[in-house]
Amino acid sequence: MQVNKHIQVTMDKIQHFPVLCWKTSKKVGAEDPRRIIHSLKVGLSLTLVSLLYLIEPLFKRIGSNATWAVMTVVVVLEFTAGATLCKGLNRGLGTLLAGSLAFFIEGVANRSGRVFRACFIGAAVFLIGAAATYMRFFPKIKKNYDYGVVIFLLTFNLITVSSYRVDNVLKIAHDRLYTIAIGCGVCLLMSLLIFPNWSGEELHNSTVLKLEGLAKSIEGCVNEYFFDTEIDDNKESCSGDQIYKGYKAVLDSKSIDESLALQASWEPRHSSHCYRIPWQQYVKLGGVLRHFGYTVVALHGCLQTEIQTPRSVRILFKDPCTRVAREVSKALIELANSIRNRRHCSPEILSDHLHEALQDLNKAIKSQPRLFLGSNRNKASNMLALAAAEAGQKRCRSGGSLSSVKTDSSALMEWKTKRASVQSREAERKVLRPQLSKIAITSLEFSEALPFAAFASLLVETVAKLDNIIDEVEELGRIACFKEFINGDDQEQQHITVKCEKPNINVSQNQLSSVSGAE
Amino acid sequence: MQVNKHIQVTMDKIQHFPVLCWKTSKKVGAEDPRRIIHSLKVGLSLTLVSLLYLIEPLFKRIGSNATWAVMTVVVVLEFTAGATLCKGLNRGLGTLLAGSLAFFIEGVANRSGRVFRACFIGAAVFLIGAAATYMRFFPKIKKNYDYGVVIFLLTFNLITVSSYRVDNVLKIAHDRLYTIAIGCGVCLLMSLLIFPNWSGEELHNSTVLKLEGLAKSIEGCVNEYFFDTEIDDNKESCSGDQIYKGYKAVLDSKSIDESLALQASWEPRHSSHCYRIPWQQYVKLGGVLRHFGYTVVALHGCLQTEIQTPRSVRILFKDPCTRVAREVSKALIELANSIRNRRHCSPEILSDHLHEALQDLNKAIKSQPRLFLGSNRNKASNMLALAAAEAGQKRCRSGGSLSSVKTDSSALMEWKTKRASVQSREAERKVLRPQLSKIAITSLEFSEALPFAAFASLLVETVAKLDNIIDEVEELGRIACFKEFINGDDQEQQHITVKCEKPNINVSQNQLSSVSGAE
Repeated sequence: MQVNKHIQVTMDKIQHFPVLCWKTSKKVGAEDPRRIIHSLKVGLSLTLVSLLYLIEPLFKRIGSNATWAVMTVVVVLEFTAGATLCKGLNRGLGTLLAGSLAFFIEGVANRSGRVFRACFIGAAVFLIGAAATYMRFFPKIKKNYDYGVVIFLLTFNLITVSSYRVDNVLKIAHDRLYTIAIGCGVCLLMSLLIFPNWSGEELHNSTVLKLEGLAKSIEGCVNEYFFDTEIDDNKESCSGDQIYKGYKAVLDSKSIDESLALQASWEPRHSSHCYRIPWQQYVKLGGVLRHFGYTVVALHGCLQTEIQTPRSVRILFKDPCTRVAREVSKALIELANSIRNRRHCSPEILSDHLHEALQDLNKAIKSQPRLFLGSNRNKASNMLALAAAEAGQKRCRSGGSLSSVKTDSSALMEWKTKRASVQSREAERKVLRPQLSKIAITSLEFSEALPFAAFASLLVETVAKLDNIIDEVEELGRIACFKEFINGDDQEQQHITVKCEKPNINVSQNQLSSVSGAE
Repeated sequence: MQVNKHIQVTMDKIQHFPVLCWKTSKKVGAEDPRRIIHSLKVGLSLTLVSLLYLIEPLFKRIGSNATWAVMTVVVVLEFTAGATLCKGLNRGLGTLLAGSLAFFIEGVANRSGRVFRACFIGAAVFLIGAAATYMRFFPKIKKNYDYGVVIFLLTFNLITVSSYRVDNVLKIAHDRLYTIAIGCGVCLLMSLLIFPNWSGEELHNSTVLKLEGLAKSIEGCVNEYFFDTEIDDNKESCSGDQIYKGYKAVLDSKSIDESLALQASWEPRHSSHCYRIPWQQYVKLGGVLRHFGYTVVALHGCLQTEIQTPRSVRILFKDPCTRVAREVSKALIELANSIRNRRHCSPEILSDHLHEALQDLNKAIKSQPRLFLGSNRNKASNMLALAAAEAGQKRCRSGGSLSSVKTDSSALMEWKTKRASVQSREAERKVLRPQLSKIAITSLEFSEALPFAAFASLLVETVAKLDNIIDEVEELGRIACFKEFINGDDQEQQHITVKCEKPNINVSQNQLSSVSGAE
């Protein structure tokens, strides 16, 4: 029976495999149609290079060295033009350097007897191998020329070692360089001229999407903070996902940004209106956005803390907070549009509305002196009791084991007694310990305005950090010669650009890994 | 003159180049001596493989196919055993699959005429090339088998294309596979048996260091928050650096952790006491640590906000805050030690001290009702004036242009007037705009307890998040069969382990990039 069932399951899996493959293929293609084009480009390049073998006259001239052209195409042709150029030039440079060094060493070795020559070659291989590998740990070389050093090592060893057995090494090397050049040529042709994907464009678009994601996250956070209780759990976690998605791309963007900027710096400039495109400035802006993102994460954390300001209290500040968030998010979207359309941002970016909203928030906080007054014990306890009851209900609904939240240190005492009795019982350890600090926190009668104060303070903090972002975007506009801001300029352009730029952030991530995992 | 100077500078650079190289070499080696060993290992492996060429009897049997062994060693031998295994197995798998497919296609092609055969091969190269490239975009394949697909493509093309010109393809493929196996064997020998570096160990050690870094950051933050004003700028920024260093490694650890865990899953288990080492649990723990890190970043952000609670107010809460931070940091260090020594963590990890400290903090906040009372306008203004004066002095010292902070909205009015007059003057734009939101914020008379409330709330938040970390560490201990906690066990072991584990976090970053950039 067991075996039969196992076979059944395996058969089912095999039967569903083609469907799964097809679905994944469709999804991958729909996410970014440029992937399909890239695949076809690779296929075409390989076929072109294979012609060196398949067509008689070509084969007669080049011979079996044509394999090197095939190898070059497989290894060098990458998703974006920048990555291809970076790899191609690294490969060329590495090959040239290795060839020169190998000939120098061969020249020295040739003057002596056969046995000494073998020893000399062995020693050279050891020394150069160790030195080149060690050099790969140097930060600067690792960053820019890691692939080049690998190719250097490969070529050097192949030439040096085979020179011991073959006499016309110079001819071999010449032929090989020739075919590698053909391979590189095909790659460059394909990646630069036929439906090119630019790393620079990727970086540009991902920066725009990051700004928009942060704007969405902030609005989402504030909306959820003030509306959550009435909405059912399903919808709530969905909006939580939205918030998370907004800042997630920003938090993990460091390595992607850096490699895209590096690749972009190899690309020829393909826009005519700027003398020099400041890719490093995009990386810097990315860093500032990441720091802004950390504040958004903390803001999001406020929605999930154990002690919560009761809804009745929060509702008092709903209006000013929502307005501040809306203004911050508006400013971020304006910055995103400014970068997208390559124009300076509107001088109205920090509007009076933002200032008014901040002032209203301030007024609202001041008008509720009792909230921030912890010593008014009765009221505080009442509020906390309310909050605790609410929290308890919620926990029950979500199936937790804690039926009510203890509001004094008796909870801790209880926990301690329990702990003493289970000290040795391994299995229960996991169930009990994790609750401790949550109990410890909820059992304290903190002024329940404290969490709201944190929320408000973080919101104000985002406004302060907005400055840094505006700073960097302005600097970017200055270096990249963005055009002047003209009112009413955006509406038409946006229609065009929004459509075609959506899937790019996924691509840049995939494209990075394709860079890093490639041979 | 100009040219002379230019030459002088270039000459200087060239003269200093060897010194710079030497210094970088020494630094790279001192950071992690294993790099030197790895370099020597690569050199030795290359020499060993070269012997296939250099020694007469060996060359007679293997012939010029020995180049493939050299190539394999250059490409496959990586810093850690896991990475080497992962690449080696991917290479083997890719080669085998490609070989089989190529023979199948050759079998079909052989039955027809020469021209049709060429067309058939061309079409196969195009189709397989495009399909394999497209498959590299599938998330699962990209994550585990990206390198394998590249090798598959490489081998398939080489065999298929050369089969058109050569008759005994089977023999070529056989010889090639043979030499590749020799190359892989040398790599495995070197990476598994001679001074092996394990990706798993890296992951383990970096997790320990991350926990310790977070502990240091939290203590640093709280210390700086309560002590900063009396210390000169130099020392302050130095301690800021310390805090930053503590959490930086945690924030950017995602891709490093994931690739280390992936490599580690290929490694044979080298410790005897556990049935299965849960590398994915380390990744999960890393995620929780990152989330803890975001709170620490927000805490650090509190030290740098524009509105600050005056020192006189802060000092009131110094004691309980410092104690909470000390207890949190103690718990983190205990967790770090628990992982380092592979034992369960002490049941005392969440001590009564933590609870007492939290209660004291609560009491302290409640005992100062006036602080959280914004409507007591006179007092608030006085305090703010004091804070503003302090801030103004500081700014003057650091050479800022703002001589005093405006405490009402007149600042904004002033800014607006200025802005109107410079609307068109591009150059001044940068100087003026960035100040706006800072002015807007400082000009508000927020209750100056608000920023402290945020600080306190975030501190309490870290305690709450501590639970998640303890959870994950316990889970890790359970799956990885950590040994039981015995009191007084640690002191001796720590002496040994602390010393030899310091440089690892740097390595793991470097090692990752060496993985990602390699051919």
